[in-house]
Amino acid sequence: MSRIELAQGAGGRGMQELLDQVIRPALSNPLLDQGHDGAYLPGQGLVMTTDSYVVSPLFFPGGNIGKLAVCGTVNDLAMCGAEPLWLSLGLIIEAGFEYDDLQKILASLAQTAKEAGVVVVTGDTKVVEAGKGDGIYINTTGIGRSRLAQPFSPKALKVGDRLLINGGLAEHGLAILAARESLPFETPPISDCACLHGLVETMLATCPEIRLLRDPTRGGLAALGNELASASSLSILLKEKDLPIKSPVQAALQMLGIDPLSVANEGKLVAFCPEASAEKLLKVMQAHPLGRDSAIIGEVIERQSAPLWIQTQIGTRRLVEMPLGEQLPRIC
Amino acid sequence: MSRIELAQGAGGRGMQELLDQVIRPALSNPLLDQGHDGAYLPGQGLVMTTDSYVVSPLFFPGGNIGKLAVCGTVNDLAMCGAEPLWLSLGLIIEAGFEYDDLQKILASLAQTAKEAGVVVVTGDTKVVEAGKGDGIYINTTGIGRSRLAQPFSPKALKVGDRLLINGGLAEHGLAILAARESLPFETPPISDCACLHGLVETMLATCPEIRLLRDPTRGGLAALGNELASASSLSILLKEKDLPIKSPVQAALQMLGIDPLSVANEGKLVAFCPEASAEKLLKVMQAHPLGRDSAIIGEVIERQSAPLWIQTQIGTRRLVEMPLGEQLPRIC
Repeated sequence: MSRIELAQGAGGRGMQELLDQVIRPALSNPLLDQGHDGAYLPGQGLVMTTDSYVVSPLFFPGGNIGKLAVCGTVNDLAMCGAEPLWLSLGLIIEAGFEYDDLQKILASLAQTAKEAGVVVVTGDTKVVEAGKGDGIYINTTGIGRSRLAQPFSPKALKVGDRLLINGGLAEHGLAILAARESLPFETPPISDCACLHGLVETMLATCPEIRLLRDPTRGGLAALGNELASASSLSILLKEKDLPIKSPVQAALQMLGIDPLSVANEGKLVAFCPEASAEKLLKVMQAHPLGRDSAIIGEVIERQSAPLWIQTQIGTRRLVEMPLGEQLPRIC
Repeated sequence: MSRIELAQGAGGRGMQELLDQVIRPALSNPLLDQGHDGAYLPGQGLVMTTDSYVVSPLFFPGGNIGKLAVCGTVNDLAMCGAEPLWLSLGLIIEAGFEYDDLQKILASLAQTAKEAGVVVVTGDTKVVEAGKGDGIYINTTGIGRSRLAQPFSPKALKVGDRLLINGGLAEHGLAILAARESLPFETPPISDCACLHGLVETMLATCPEIRLLRDPTRGGLAALGNELASASSLSILLKEKDLPIKSPVQAALQMLGIDPLSVANEGKLVAFCPEASAEKLLKVMQAHPLGRDSAIIGEVIERQSAPLWIQTQIGTRRLVEMPLGEQLPRIC
């Protein structure tokens, strides 16, 4: 392979190879090698995270690239146990892009930032020729204040730890796919795009023994489970019957032949906590507006022959592979 | 005007309109409205700055997009009087981009970061379809520790203050233009792309009374002078005979009909200091490897009918307009 392929941006195996073989070796250092959604800046109590947003289409049911560019970065800070404070904003705009659309996107971005209590403190705008972009690409980099005594690490996971999720799977990816392909839904599926820092604050206040938080974005729960189990040197077992998936989402994905485990979410998190705390944490999550459909969806088990497994409805176990990343490019 | 135009990314009047009419109003807040190259984060002693790099071509004499992505952001921190510490890295790669080129760019980025003493702490990689990008776009966001008791502000400028520059003008812009258009130079012009934080450290140590630093990137000295004079409610007078421009650069730009004042630099800074300190500061700058050709190039004067003026070689004064931004898109 001598050229970058589209699937390498989709959060699956192709991306992992690109990161592991090219990008990380070039830049390796102890802070980057933490391998989090963000970096704990030494001696500052601060966390830094960055994401570029290239979602297509730019507008979709439940949000647009502006809202997503705030939620995605706020969530990465929240997953590091940090209170989001400041954002930078880098715009790459394609010549010919409509002023109206830019204004709508910025208004949505500003509104989402306001609701999340984060401030856009600095920015940069570039314009590229028509045909060298796709309307607009947005980078946001976020700084937050860590609420944790110890940074989260997959190494902290222990056998028996429970996995909890705050609601239905695969809603963002399906919404993007439906909007992009103009799929004929009676009611178009809606993205779950939301800022999760408020939910996380409540969760950490009640259950400081949470071991780890991570949001199942690109590559979905399948990528998250594979990555974290590999990093922890343990395995993870999901329970299919306990996975919250709304029935229209389930039906649509079945029809399309897409595994909901590999589909991106933008308003979901997975929390790992000790078994003894799982029920308490579940209640706290279910009491929050963004966690009503929360569920305990699996547990950490001894290392098996593969990192991620699922116990199916009929009681058998099958392994869940790292998604290849080909099905859903440009989901965020 | 209902669509974004290419010139609006080039640092001139078009960009100012886009920023003033669309982007700043949507996001306005006291931190963003500081209007610096970076934002002083309240209560942290830290500065945050962001830039996306879309330079075309990706490789040019004197550098490439990887080196530029470090120097540009390090320099924005340096212009805020900050010691650069941490960078985030956002890559948007076009499908089909050569692995080899990616590796060269990352190696150069890593090497430049190492030399500058900054650490890439977190990153993000996206891939877009062929025809929706241009090889690679890079965002870097930087965090640095401020060395200033008071943030720099154009409001601090006083009549009589001198402007100093650390060397020859217009070298980056000409190098890019020559590489892009394959202009037939016997010796291709070389970009001045360099990290200036070391020079700034020496300057601030010797001359803490420096009022303001700014790097003349997009839109060149013309944009810098217009912006800062407008923000200070004073005017600036440049002395044409004192502007350091290497003679091959001068000749090439004359042939191309391009005003060197409006051409981007990537290894230059303009310092404003009290008249009494100008000679001392000049000596310190000239003693630094990145400041050998430093010169005092003008002064702050009472407000005139326009913000920026130049005293020509023949002794007349003419005003220097904000560049339109049409000549040199995608210079950084």
